[in-house]
Amino acid sequence: MNWCRFQSGATISYGIVEGDAVTVVEGIPWQEHHVTARKLRLSEVKLLVPVIPGTFYCAGVNYRSHVIKMAQKRGAEPKFPEKADIGYRANNALVAHGENIIKPKLAGEEFQYEAELVAVFGKTARNVPKEKALDYVFGWTIGNDVSERHWQRADRTLWRSKNADTFKPMGPWITTGLHPKDMRTIVRLNGQEVENFATGDMIFDAETYIAEVSKYITINPGDVMWLGTDGVPQNMKPGDVCEIDITGIGTLRNPIVAEK
Amino acid sequence: MNWCRFQSGATISYGIVEGDAVTVVEGIPWQEHHVTARKLRLSEVKLLVPVIPGTFYCAGVNYRSHVIKMAQKRGAEPKFPEKADIGYRANNALVAHGENIIKPKLAGEEFQYEAELVAVFGKTARNVPKEKALDYVFGWTIGNDVSERHWQRADRTLWRSKNADTFKPMGPWITTGLHPKDMRTIVRLNGQEVENFATGDMIFDAETYIAEVSKYITINPGDVMWLGTDGVPQNMKPGDVCEIDITGIGTLRNPIVAEK
Repeated sequence: MNWCRFQSGATISYGIVEGDAVTVVEGIPWQEHHVTARKLRLSEVKLLVPVIPGTFYCAGVNYRSHVIKMAQKRGAEPKFPEKADIGYRANNALVAHGENIIKPKLAGEEFQYEAELVAVFGKTARNVPKEKALDYVFGWTIGNDVSERHWQRADRTLWRSKNADTFKPMGPWITTGLHPKDMRTIVRLNGQEVENFATGDMIFDAETYIAEVSKYITINPGDVMWLGTDGVPQNMKPGDVCEIDITGIGTLRNPIVAEK
Repeated sequence: MNWCRFQSGATISYGIVEGDAVTVVEGIPWQEHHVTARKLRLSEVKLLVPVIPGTFYCAGVNYRSHVIKMAQKRGAEPKFPEKADIGYRANNALVAHGENIIKPKLAGEEFQYEAELVAVFGKTARNVPKEKALDYVFGWTIGNDVSERHWQRADRTLWRSKNADTFKPMGPWITTGLHPKDMRTIVRLNGQEVENFATGDMIFDAETYIAEVSKYITINPGDVMWLGTDGVPQNMKPGDVCEIDITGIGTLRNPIVAEK
């Protein structure tokens, strides 16, 4: 089932997407809610970021081939993460499916997508075993961990390289009933496939990250965890369109525009 | 003026603190609000974290003497930050004035306070010049950037060393009409003064951080920015009480208890 968050007129609500129909839902999908009889056309509503997380977790480096190829590109030895040390991203950077990714004036050429599977939590998780970890995930969405590589190398933190405004597209909706091991992630730049990988090929799978984080931290309903990308991302420039498909979820599509 | 966020019965609201009186405010202090005629006793309400930020910024290393002394302790050369590269902390870790800091079972001896001045934003800031940066700050509060040093050294990110549950006490309230240059920060552990520094002795002042961040990022009302600590923090153990005074604001007081 696909749960979207949308705006219609002045009203923001959740909805269930089936084909071009959105059934209006009152309340929050992973809390008390009521599926109404009201239907709208998907093409007539504005999709929003499917959830504004309380805490925005991101695995960072989490695919072996990404580590190897990115190291080759830099002429360096690949260095794999030894533990599931989670990182963070910032809510200011979130934009929805269809919204513009704005390339800042000060950004350089190496302005790149990173296609990521995103877990959206539906239950409070603390000290959960790996075997039960996915029970706490309400559903899955798609994230584009847009990155400016010069800033990533130049700065002490990832603040502007990964958290500048519009650098975190997330959507189009949250899909329930899926398992990461069955998915493929495909990236298209201007309609041309530039990446295609098994979503489940993670160094540390979602279960490991959730179990590990929950040893120290209470994961709350509405929190999200982005799970890393594979391959070697290419540069994006104003005028481009970046699309990320994850099988079973759908497509996150965002045009790139220049900052005015 | 001191603006608190508090719970009384089942109701959560903002209030203005004067002595032992809290005047109930409807709405958000930095948005539309209404000061009511209702007064409660401060001692009879439960103070809450004064704001749950949309984005939780933290300057990290930002006092020269902290860098020098922490490096001496490790037998290393001091390394000063070259730019105002902001970092982030996580909302899951926030606790209010008076609440327990829980030392995790897995934490080691080097479990330490860090006393920090916190800017609370009241206006949307994007591309603001340094000279105007403080106009976007609604008021100031106190943060304790609790840190587990072994994890800080061992992990790829600061996730559990600085963001485990209860590691981010913030409060007691937000104070308006102050300037960082006029404040002193004092830390007491079990009533004994262990740190006393000029709050304004920052490597990059609040104005610099705000101006720099806002070149790339929209800072929103309700966001917070923690501004770093000075000195060499000492270890805290269960049974201890950590108090941070910042002159003009008040005292953030939290007992340390062991995880059960």
